Amino acid sequence: MRPLLTSGNDEEAVLDQGKTSSTLHTNFEKEELESHRAVYVGVHVPLGRQSRRRHRHRGHRHHRKRRERSEEREDGRDSPSYDTPSQRVQFILGTEDDDEEHIPHDLFTELDELSCRDGHEQEWRETARWLKFEEDVEDGGERWSKPYVATLSLHSLFELRSCILNGTVLLDMRASSIDEIADMVIDSMLASGQLDEGVRQKVREAMLKRHHHQNEKKLSNRIPLVRSFADIGKKHSDPHLLERNAGLLASPQSAPCNLDNSKSSESRMNGGGGSRENSTVDFSKVTPPSLVQLYILPHSVDMNFMKKIPPGAEASNVLVGEVDFLERPIIAFIRLSPAVLLSGLTEVPVPTRFLFLMLGPFGKGGQYHEIGRSIATLMTDEVFHDVAYKAKDRVDLLSGIDEFLDQVTVLPPGEWDPTIRIEPPKSVPSQEKRKTPSLANGSAHNADLTKEEEHQAGPELQRTGRMFGGLVKDVRRKLPFLWSDIRDAVSLQCLASVLFLYCACMSPVITFGGLLGEATKGNISAIESLFGASLTGVAYSVFAGQPLTILGSTGPVLVFEKILFKFCSDYGLSYLSLRTSIGLWTAFLCLVLVATDASSLVCYITRFTEEAFAALICIIFIYEALEKLFDLGEHYPINMNNNLDNLTFYTCQCAQPTNASAEVQKIWSERNLSAESIPWSQLDVKECKGLQGEFVGSACSHGGPFIPDVLFWSIILFFTTFFLSAFLKQFKTKRYFPTKVRSTISDFAIFLTIMIMVLIDYLVGVPSPKLNVPDRFEPTSKATRGWLISPLGSNPWWTLLAAAVPALLCTILIFMDQQITAVIINRKENRLKKGCGYHLDLLVVAVMLGVCSLMGLPWFVAATVLSISHVNSLKLESGCAAPGEQPKFLGIREQRVTGFMIFILMGCSVFMTSALKFIPMPVLYGVFLYMGVSSLKGIQLFDRIKLFGMPAKHQPDLIYLRYVPLWKVHISMQLYLYIFISFFYKLVRHMFLYF
Amino acid sequence: MRPLLTSGNDEEAVLDQGKTSSTLHTNFEKEELESHRAVYVGVHVPLGRQSRRRHRHRGHRHHRKRRERSEEREDGRDSPSYDTPSQRVQFILGTEDDDEEHIPHDLFTELDELSCRDGHEQEWRETARWLKFEEDVEDGGERWSKPYVATLSLHSLFELRSCILNGTVLLDMRASSIDEIADMVIDSMLASGQLDEGVRQKVREAMLKRHHHQNEKKLSNRIPLVRSFADIGKKHSDPHLLERNAGLLASPQSAPCNLDNSKSSESRMNGGGGSRENSTVDFSKVTPPSLVQLYILPHSVDMNFMKKIPPGAEASNVLVGEVDFLERPIIAFIRLSPAVLLSGLTEVPVPTRFLFLMLGPFGKGGQYHEIGRSIATLMTDEVFHDVAYKAKDRVDLLSGIDEFLDQVTVLPPGEWDPTIRIEPPKSVPSQEKRKTPSLANGSAHNADLTKEEEHQAGPELQRTGRMFGGLVKDVRRKLPFLWSDIRDAVSLQCLASVLFLYCACMSPVITFGGLLGEATKGNISAIESLFGASLTGVAYSVFAGQPLTILGSTGPVLVFEKILFKFCSDYGLSYLSLRTSIGLWTAFLCLVLVATDASSLVCYITRFTEEAFAALICIIFIYEALEKLFDLGEHYPINMNNNLDNLTFYTCQCAQPTNASAEVQKIWSERNLSAESIPWSQLDVKECKGLQGEFVGSACSHGGPFIPDVLFWSIILFFTTFFLSAFLKQFKTKRYFPTKVRSTISDFAIFLTIMIMVLIDYLVGVPSPKLNVPDRFEPTSKATRGWLISPLGSNPWWTLLAAAVPALLCTILIFMDQQITAVIINRKENRLKKGCGYHLDLLVVAVMLGVCSLMGLPWFVAATVLSISHVNSLKLESGCAAPGEQPKFLGIREQRVTGFMIFILMGCSVFMTSALKFIPMPVLYGVFLYMGVSSLKGIQLFDRIKLFGMPAKHQPDLIYLRYVPLWKVHISMQLYLYIFISFFYKLVRHMFLYF
Repeated sequence: MRPLLTSGNDEEAVLDQGKTSSTLHTNFEKEELESHRAVYVGVHVPLGRQSRRRHRHRGHRHHRKRRERSEEREDGRDSPSYDTPSQRVQFILGTEDDDEEHIPHDLFTELDELSCRDGHEQEWRETARWLKFEEDVEDGGERWSKPYVATLSLHSLFELRSCILNGTVLLDMRASSIDEIADMVIDSMLASGQLDEGVRQKVREAMLKRHHHQNEKKLSNRIPLVRSFADIGKKHSDPHLLERNAGLLASPQSAPCNLDNSKSSESRMNGGGGSRENSTVDFSKVTPPSLVQLYILPHSVDMNFMKKIPPGAEASNVLVGEVDFLERPIIAFIRLSPAVLLSGLTEVPVPTRFLFLMLGPFGKGGQYHEIGRSIATLMTDEVFHDVAYKAKDRVDLLSGIDEFLDQVTVLPPGEWDPTIRIEPPKSVPSQEKRKTPSLANGSAHNADLTKEEEHQAGPELQRTGRMFGGLVKDVRRKLPFLWSDIRDAVSLQCLASVLFLYCACMSPVITFGGLLGEATKGNISAIESLFGASLTGVAYSVFAGQPLTILGSTGPVLVFEKILFKFCSDYGLSYLSLRTSIGLWTAFLCLVLVATDASSLVCYITRFTEEAFAALICIIFIYEALEKLFDLGEHYPINMNNNLDNLTFYTCQCAQPTNASAEVQKIWSERNLSAESIPWSQLDVKECKGLQGEFVGSACSHGGPFIPDVLFWSIILFFTTFFLSAFLKQFKTKRYFPTKVRSTISDFAIFLTIMIMVLIDYLVGVPSPKLNVPDRFEPTSKATRGWLISPLGSNPWWTLLAAAVPALLCTILIFMDQQITAVIINRKENRLKKGCGYHLDLLVVAVMLGVCSLMGLPWFVAATVLSISHVNSLKLESGCAAPGEQPKFLGIREQRVTGFMIFILMGCSVFMTSALKFIPMPVLYGVFLYMGVSSLKGIQLFDRIKLFGMPAKHQPDLIYLRYVPLWKVHISMQLYLYIFISFFYKLVRHMFLYF
Repeated sequence: MRPLLTSGNDEEAVLDQGKTSSTLHTNFEKEELESHRAVYVGVHVPLGRQSRRRHRHRGHRHHRKRRERSEEREDGRDSPSYDTPSQRVQFILGTEDDDEEHIPHDLFTELDELSCRDGHEQEWRETARWLKFEEDVEDGGERWSKPYVATLSLHSLFELRSCILNGTVLLDMRASSIDEIADMVIDSMLASGQLDEGVRQKVREAMLKRHHHQNEKKLSNRIPLVRSFADIGKKHSDPHLLERNAGLLASPQSAPCNLDNSKSSESRMNGGGGSRENSTVDFSKVTPPSLVQLYILPHSVDMNFMKKIPPGAEASNVLVGEVDFLERPIIAFIRLSPAVLLSGLTEVPVPTRFLFLMLGPFGKGGQYHEIGRSIATLMTDEVFHDVAYKAKDRVDLLSGIDEFLDQVTVLPPGEWDPTIRIEPPKSVPSQEKRKTPSLANGSAHNADLTKEEEHQAGPELQRTGRMFGGLVKDVRRKLPFLWSDIRDAVSLQCLASVLFLYCACMSPVITFGGLLGEATKGNISAIESLFGASLTGVAYSVFAGQPLTILGSTGPVLVFEKILFKFCSDYGLSYLSLRTSIGLWTAFLCLVLVATDASSLVCYITRFTEEAFAALICIIFIYEALEKLFDLGEHYPINMNNNLDNLTFYTCQCAQPTNASAEVQKIWSERNLSAESIPWSQLDVKECKGLQGEFVGSACSHGGPFIPDVLFWSIILFFTTFFLSAFLKQFKTKRYFPTKVRSTISDFAIFLTIMIMVLIDYLVGVPSPKLNVPDRFEPTSKATRGWLISPLGSNPWWTLLAAAVPALLCTILIFMDQQITAVIINRKENRLKKGCGYHLDLLVVAVMLGVCSLMGLPWFVAATVLSISHVNSLKLESGCAAPGEQPKFLGIREQRVTGFMIFILMGCSVFMTSALKFIPMPVLYGVFLYMGVSSLKGIQLFDRIKLFGMPAKHQPDLIYLRYVPLWKVHISMQLYLYIFISFFYKLVRHMFLYF
């Protein structure tokens, strides 16, 4: 077995010897910048000749068979030439290799430099590594730098090119230890005259110096890391080690077979473009690779880093160093076949595939370092990396470099400081277009743009033309995901999401119930609201097309109920019955909409409508949160102008009202009391209010005593909750603590905040308003209603029909609320994989609306902000990535369990009253403010509003600003906002206020 | 007069014709990437030949006379060759040009592209511009992008090189209008065969199309911007226009003289390396440049942008475009001599020096655009720009490009997205080392590092060896700045600083006075503190060596006074007299320290000591701010467990104490009262406390009634102040509002915050604690003391001598406090220009200490946090810079006026009581918290502490982390911190507590 050998003095190189070969060896002897000129000369002339020669081969293009190609090489000893390096690279990558050894693997690249620190013996010291981005060992820091974009100097890239052109290139070398490799490399160098026989031993020694890796740190107890074969025998007896290593090797079983695989070995023999002069090199030392696997793992492997290395990865080792015995640099590029686990060479136990060796005289260390970085960065490049795996000869490698150079971006020296380490970008454009010729003409960019433009054109929303056609398709689409909808919920994140949204949903449901109770005089109140929400929510999360949507109570429904109740009491109708018949009509109309595939109209909802709606809802949400805080000011009045000196006279007692009206008298007589018999000054606040007493004293506001501290304490709770939850949520991007801890804190941010605030509130003890959950499961007005309401009741028969009119308006409202929210949840940016189901959603909502009506419970539809918060709390990001790579947004944890659990918990709240009563309302309002603000973040419309006050020069570099004139951005945004707000508000107002 | 002409077919190029000249013309016909190969070939071969030829010229290096050089060119027609492009460029730049026309000016570069939007006629449309960084016209945005670092593709740089190599290069063309230039360029192209006679007219028309600039916006009312000579005559009569333009022209008067300057014109004739074949070009149209000045300004010049263009700047216009009549691209690079104001060509009215023209067939617009960007970026490059001014021929330009290529930084394609626009860096390394050979070997980097290391070794701190030698030098150093110390204060920033620090200083002085009053039973109280601070502060700011230091009261002084008072009352000594004699001794000892140049010991204060001290003081400051807030909790107790229902019984009345002690009885009898005669329930809080009454009721805490709302309101004020001031201070870096507004808001941040908070507090009306300033100027204990205190008084005579012992300790304390603070203020990072004056500082402090002692006022020394805040509020940043350049920190507004005004205002506070009493104390505490936190920011020690909890991979890329091992950072920091804290605390504790 012999490696393919293409050395510095192959025929082609010989032709250029006059001006090129000599340049290499003088490169590092002249002035630093001198070499640059030499490189220019050295690099480009052979290509020039090649390009002139290209017409010879014009006939033999693309897709020729491997054997043909190697035959041609045999006689012409030149691979087919192409017009540009790019085309040549595309040809190299296009060859279908039946040889396993040339399938590209992931690469881990390590740069080791020969150094003699602390006056000790020289050793190879790891100074940088690459998985995708560069990480340096800080100069004296003994620590890894942040990963950064490897900025190279063009100068050293050209020097590297010259190195590959003139140095030793050994492809598909078969060796099992660093000793063997050293021998073969040196033999080859001697044969090509790169090296003098006299320094052979010294070069060998230098190559075999021990390697020191960053993770070994202070444990430099001088373990001979490069082990001899004698060691291997001993370790052989430990089968566990073998097992542990087996998984890490590229193809542990196939390697021995390769020995007998005559076809692949033949191709390897013929494939090389190298000359025969080096056939004297002694390759007898090559051992079967089965032994190779017996190398043990290095002692201290950074397991955290090991996790980031993809399975099956191989290593490329770059070794550069200064030595005192050489007068000109020697360079070798080696590809091993198969890859070999060279113990101690690489930081992590992955088999080495590539080796780049550069040794040169003292004084040019910085230059060698830069060349080392250049080859390492090249090896990290997706395309060159493939070329390196598939290269047949030196020329292929050079084409790879040229193609790389053709693609690089250049930073002018006067505008950039090269010492700045550039943070890795969020994403890197696909390099596929470099690999395949068809994509080369940059149409990819346009494709991206049009992709951005297309919006909501999935098959889900196409009209079927059949009754319930869309519904059937929805069910068919969603049914296969049912099991995964449960299975995918096994995650701590889901628990966090459930806890967060349970807290977030409880408060509006209870508040809404309370308000409804006030409006309907107890006909429908908190317990009905809780029961209805739980019932609808559970059904929806189990059966709906998009279980990520969270149902809730919305403002318009409250307005509607209020008006209806007033209407009924004015005209003496039974409120609950009329309500039921309207509800049933609405449910029916919704079913009609489902049957007619009306939800496919959703595709006409433009991005602007959707955004304006979401922005509006969010702003209302924020407004409501703040309004509730202001409302506290009314419920808990403070004495604004207190004289602290007069606190001893500061009282507010109950007293007999001065002018008791007849109504008041009636209240007293009902309880068999008279003004005189009531012990006024002994009454507490509630009793006093109940008996319509008057409050007298300096500590009295209009309706009762001033309430000290509660308002300000509520304000403190409110804002602390807001800032704390925002802080904890952002904790993921902070620098402290390990990733795991940070992401958990971030997931549980809201729940943690609530817990912390509850604890603080409990410790301070100020009687802030608390969440007040009903503690018994029975209708609020047990006397007047049960759990089943007749649609007719005491009403005249025609109300059954007349109910269809308000039902029509309700249907429009519910359809819009439900479907626009669904559109926002299903938007492309969320990368949902399980599809949507607008028809199914509406069906479930309609059915539950009917059920709720019959049971006398309030109605629930999709709540925009809660749904957005739900989705945001379930975001998935890629975890294991190369250092420096930004985590990618992978999608949403789509499942039905969180929704189900939230509403089950809500149903059980009745039994948790004793715990829930500790939650202060201002804390929940703070959570609302946070939800509203964080939901606004994803909305482009809001970003655009922010551009208003900004001078153009400060505006961020947003993609849409590059392509759309600013006035258009503003105008269109304003127009849509105006139209939509006025439309929506007028609709709601007109519909209900003038009902 | 003829321009030097070096065209595509000069002799050298002809030699390469076989492989190069043809490549240019086919460049854009083949595949895009094809050209790359061609460029490689085209570019490097001539250089290769040149390098082989270089030995011919070895003898004639550096500093040869201009004439010699041009003679050599005459025969050899080759400039002297150097080893590398870099050396050649250094030679080109090194030639001392006696010719005014070749002195480099600043350049404004504009890229215009031929486009036919909206179906209109084709016109040149400005698409990008450069002053230092690139600004693009956004695609459809009709707006300028943010300035960014021009990232080029290496590919187009090589194409550009090929363009310069093969295109027409016309250096020192003398023309006065775009028409003339067009004619000359076309003649030259025809002569060289680049262009066919047939398309002459079409090319000319294309070149003369009107130019549309971004700032013209929608005013496209078709003004013929390229005016004929007929127009000029008319405009001649408007002298104002002439005047306005004159300043903008590079050298308006020298231009006509050049016509007769035979020497320079001769050299210009000989200088070119071009061939003679093009002598047929008709240059008769050249007009005297005096006419050139008569061109009028374009209508709409962006005056904001105009301000950023340095005076004397010239323009370089890059014109690229697609046309339908050409089959291969034509390229021309033109240098005009003199520069000509070509009306309408450039966005701003600056004369054009360079023109780059590229016209080519349709379909390669993107490629032309990139080439245009490349030449524009090159023209912006400091070195190439100089080369372009001084170039004698095409080869010089090529060397310039090669040198540029040699210096570029390269971003690998797989690690970077080229569409990302890179923000300009904070600073760009100097390009000087590229210009002069001596600096080439990168020793600059090391120099920077050592510069960073050297610390406090100015001449100010050298021991003189003479009595008062240092003081005399201090006075001599500072005296010349006296007038500028007043003059430099004329700025709004100083007003902001005065208002901020007045508010900030008032509170500690008053608080300190109050505490002192308590400790000394009214001997020294608020009014003495105010008077003393004002007196000392005014004297210090007028006479001190470093008037940026702010004096204040420090904690140890308070402790000292407390102990002294206790000692005196225990041993029956007169406190005020003993204090005076100690003060006089301390002043004397300080004078001795001044006389002996003891302040030069300051140079032994290391960075660590200094930082540890500053950090300690800041942390104490923050701690005190928070502590004061907690203290409010004691003064304003709240009822933690209030039952809101029982508010009607919620009272706290004054009552007769159950067990009145003898002492209490005495108080009553003193006022002729008995327990029975006192109307207990009628007493207010103060009266009740005065008469030692008991508080009875549910609204009572231990010492009095609960005080509602005040505590929570104070907390709200405190944190709102902190966050609001931080927000307003950072407003400078926000994107909203123009720069001016933002920086003013930022300067006045603290004052604005205080004003806003005072207003809010006033509107809410809750009786929060207010700043309580004495309203009469007289000693607190008028009866017992006057404004002059005798050092002996009633004390025995030996106290005069014994006072020297405590005085020694005081001296050490004052010396350390004063000088470490001065070191922090004088540190290098602040870039003070007027020098420091440690000896003078100490002298003023000593003298004022004596004066204060004699007047019975407290002592004042430098207050670290106040001084840092003062310096921070006076930071100067460079304003007018090229778009994208970061403002640079220029230094501190060093003057004496702010300090003077602060303390004058403080002295006048007595008369402003009615206004000051509205300032709530919690607001001032919030300001303290802000000052403490913001002072911590500048302290590296604190940054290092933050590194503790951070995983290494997240640590920011700080310079010291690159070079110093992390454990060293930690260990040394810890050690110093520990040593210093324990030292400092033990010193203070031992000194005073066990006095």
